[in-house]
Amino acid sequence: MNYKMMGRFISQILIIEALFMIPAGIISLCYGEYTAMWSFGAAIAVTGLVSLVLYLLCKGAPSAFYAKEGLVCVGISWIVLSLFGALPFWFSREIPNFIDAFFETVSGFTTTGSSVVANVEGLSHGIIYWRSFSNWLGGMGVLVFLLAFTGGKGSGFTMHLLRAESPGPNVGKLVPKMRTTATLLYVIYIVMTIINFLFLTAGRMPVFEAVCTAMSTAGTGGFGIKNDSFASFSPYIQNVTTVFMILFAVNFSCYYLLLLGQFKAVFKDEELRTFVGIILGAIVLLTLNIRPLYGTLEESIRHAAFQVGTLISSTGFASTDFDLWPSFSKAILMCIMVVGACAGSTGGGLKVARLLLLFKSLRRNIRKTLNPKKVQVVRNNDAVVSEQVLENTNAYLAAYVLILFISFALVSLDGFSVETNFSAVLSCFNNMGPGFAAVGPTCNFSGYSAFSKIILSLDMLLGRLEIFPILVLFSRSTWKR
Amino acid sequence: MNYKMMGRFISQILIIEALFMIPAGIISLCYGEYTAMWSFGAAIAVTGLVSLVLYLLCKGAPSAFYAKEGLVCVGISWIVLSLFGALPFWFSREIPNFIDAFFETVSGFTTTGSSVVANVEGLSHGIIYWRSFSNWLGGMGVLVFLLAFTGGKGSGFTMHLLRAESPGPNVGKLVPKMRTTATLLYVIYIVMTIINFLFLTAGRMPVFEAVCTAMSTAGTGGFGIKNDSFASFSPYIQNVTTVFMILFAVNFSCYYLLLLGQFKAVFKDEELRTFVGIILGAIVLLTLNIRPLYGTLEESIRHAAFQVGTLISSTGFASTDFDLWPSFSKAILMCIMVVGACAGSTGGGLKVARLLLLFKSLRRNIRKTLNPKKVQVVRNNDAVVSEQVLENTNAYLAAYVLILFISFALVSLDGFSVETNFSAVLSCFNNMGPGFAAVGPTCNFSGYSAFSKIILSLDMLLGRLEIFPILVLFSRSTWKR
Repeated sequence: MNYKMMGRFISQILIIEALFMIPAGIISLCYGEYTAMWSFGAAIAVTGLVSLVLYLLCKGAPSAFYAKEGLVCVGISWIVLSLFGALPFWFSREIPNFIDAFFETVSGFTTTGSSVVANVEGLSHGIIYWRSFSNWLGGMGVLVFLLAFTGGKGSGFTMHLLRAESPGPNVGKLVPKMRTTATLLYVIYIVMTIINFLFLTAGRMPVFEAVCTAMSTAGTGGFGIKNDSFASFSPYIQNVTTVFMILFAVNFSCYYLLLLGQFKAVFKDEELRTFVGIILGAIVLLTLNIRPLYGTLEESIRHAAFQVGTLISSTGFASTDFDLWPSFSKAILMCIMVVGACAGSTGGGLKVARLLLLFKSLRRNIRKTLNPKKVQVVRNNDAVVSEQVLENTNAYLAAYVLILFISFALVSLDGFSVETNFSAVLSCFNNMGPGFAAVGPTCNFSGYSAFSKIILSLDMLLGRLEIFPILVLFSRSTWKR
Repeated sequence: MNYKMMGRFISQILIIEALFMIPAGIISLCYGEYTAMWSFGAAIAVTGLVSLVLYLLCKGAPSAFYAKEGLVCVGISWIVLSLFGALPFWFSREIPNFIDAFFETVSGFTTTGSSVVANVEGLSHGIIYWRSFSNWLGGMGVLVFLLAFTGGKGSGFTMHLLRAESPGPNVGKLVPKMRTTATLLYVIYIVMTIINFLFLTAGRMPVFEAVCTAMSTAGTGGFGIKNDSFASFSPYIQNVTTVFMILFAVNFSCYYLLLLGQFKAVFKDEELRTFVGIILGAIVLLTLNIRPLYGTLEESIRHAAFQVGTLISSTGFASTDFDLWPSFSKAILMCIMVVGACAGSTGGGLKVARLLLLFKSLRRNIRKTLNPKKVQVVRNNDAVVSEQVLENTNAYLAAYVLILFISFALVSLDGFSVETNFSAVLSCFNNMGPGFAAVGPTCNFSGYSAFSKIILSLDMLLGRLEIFPILVLFSRSTWKR
């Protein structure tokens, strides 16, 4: 393990984070919220100072990353990012407990959106902006940002890093040059966020609210600006958000293909077709099931679509308290929570692409049992999937299930109900936001103990970074010489 | 698909089932329960007749099974076995609804032990015997029985069948000859059941009750003879049952090795060591957690050990209402429910051996990521595990998770709570017996709709036959020419 290299890398991440805090500080200043402003100032100073010290300590490190260092770096830099990102919450006393502030920040950067804040409307503007911004930055990834806009010069940036941060079983480059890929991703991301913002302002949402909402939606994060999430917004705002949550949960390479005019390739994409199929199916089932709860068919469809959009994209907004829905609806919602978004999007969960691979490799396995002598391969969009990708996907599921049950057992120490604990873990691990019962859409995570909050924070990081970058931090062979 | 071959095979299964109903009929006669006696008589007649017709229709079929026919035959024969095994319950009106009777029989043969009967003590002796006997026969398997005691002559018996019915990722033969392996397994099984019976009678349990209890314990089935399961039995009976439930959840090849005097091989067996480790760990954690609920330390340990034994072996007895235990205990119990027993035992669940393989293949995957150039293999008891076994194990997990979530969604249509539905599916799929909340140890499954009972019955069969023999019945490529 090359510690100097890691140190220099983290120094870069921290200086970027410090720069990103400046707008939040300016917003606080504009609204005359001086406590928040000074908190951001102090946080910027601390973060910048640590970055500088690390930079000076780690001068002259070699610049090429190996696979191991790459993974470890990604894991550690997300933890560091969250530790320093928590400072403004803590300094301003708007979240007085540091563990709570850390939980909130992890929840932000991992685009989970689980909150410990009961009264969101009581937070200052700077802090609300910082929460939503963490959703936005975490959605596409801070390392991808680093690569896109600094070129990762001298940081020894390799494909390992991009792979480790981007969601999905098989991350492809859009164009041969890695930096151009990263830039393209961010440009598409920024443009789509702006379009979302414009649609929201067209519905007479105030500018500040529209900025924050668009950022949380784009990152499929789910930090809201109202205590009741989306319940009090107009049907227009709700519908716009439904559409954009789903759009941000689509593989971004589809948008790139659209820009190139390759409509046919997009239309034929297996993952996208499955994703759309699941969404439509779930909306129909939910609408039928919740029809008696709402006055009109329009309202039933709107709430069904919103909740499907929010949970399959792992955003975590809520337009109604779905914890009051019938069991069948809750079960469907839990299933799509696990399915999650498309690979290469800002959404969380197991990912549709991975589910397709699991399903296909299972089908292959059955066929093999039935006809042991025939050679069988797994295909995706007509291309043969390598055995290594299949093996990784299966290992991913194994790790997923193990972590799910271990976290569930640990979190249960706090004594909440089985439903609360299981859905809390499921929600954090899939970067969702709210769960059911005591962590339902009208509640928050403040009731959990510090220990559980740390476990849930780890789950969020494991979910966002797709397990391995965090898991290697706990592996003995990572740290031995 | 060779239908004649399948028909002849099923004819054999049915005649054995008819023969096994005779003792139950005799017991009914002895206790003067004439309705039950006539019901058994009628069931024997119907089963025997269908067997005869099938035999005559399918004369002269070829005698060698291919992999496909083998799997399909195992799946279908278990369904047929349960359909005809349900007749005595239905004819005697002790379970007046046929779907309920079918559920009860599937639950018996798959050694699940979930019941629709609220008042077990109100059942007649013959019926109680038949329930417990179905647990016993299902534990080791009816096909293994057929092989052991008829030699499977002319039935085209192959290793495929034994593999499909015996639990675990990698079924080995004890001795080179398959029939001798089957006979050895059944002899060990019968001897251990008798020892269990003797221990129970030594605790002054009446003979009939001891027979039924020993059979349910041996099959790790869990059909009790009292309404409160084991709560009213003496501590001695509870402790004896704890020990035997755990013994029957151990890989039977360990007992064979013990008979051969190879103590070292048994002591070094990785699966056994892990199994014992999990049991001890769980007992300690539970005892600490439930200590305040019981008067003495002895009582806490006794109940902790009993519940760990019953859930890890997938038996499903209960010495106390563990649905009232704290959340942490419930979470631990749910985890060991999923872990399940050792491969090659009568217990259910994912199996410890499979969990070890998943864990090791995950570790291999992490190592591969860290050192891409090094060749890594997975070992079990120092022998290299083939890639095919690893692939099958991973496919098994994928199927397990998919089925779990789909069943959970379907069963949720009945509107019970998330906890009830999830634990009901988990319990049936792992051949456990009781779940939590509305299907907890003091409740039963009679509240579910016929549709859910069929889904849960399928889950039990999927769990007992380890998914693939049932799954192939739903695969298109099985039925196409």
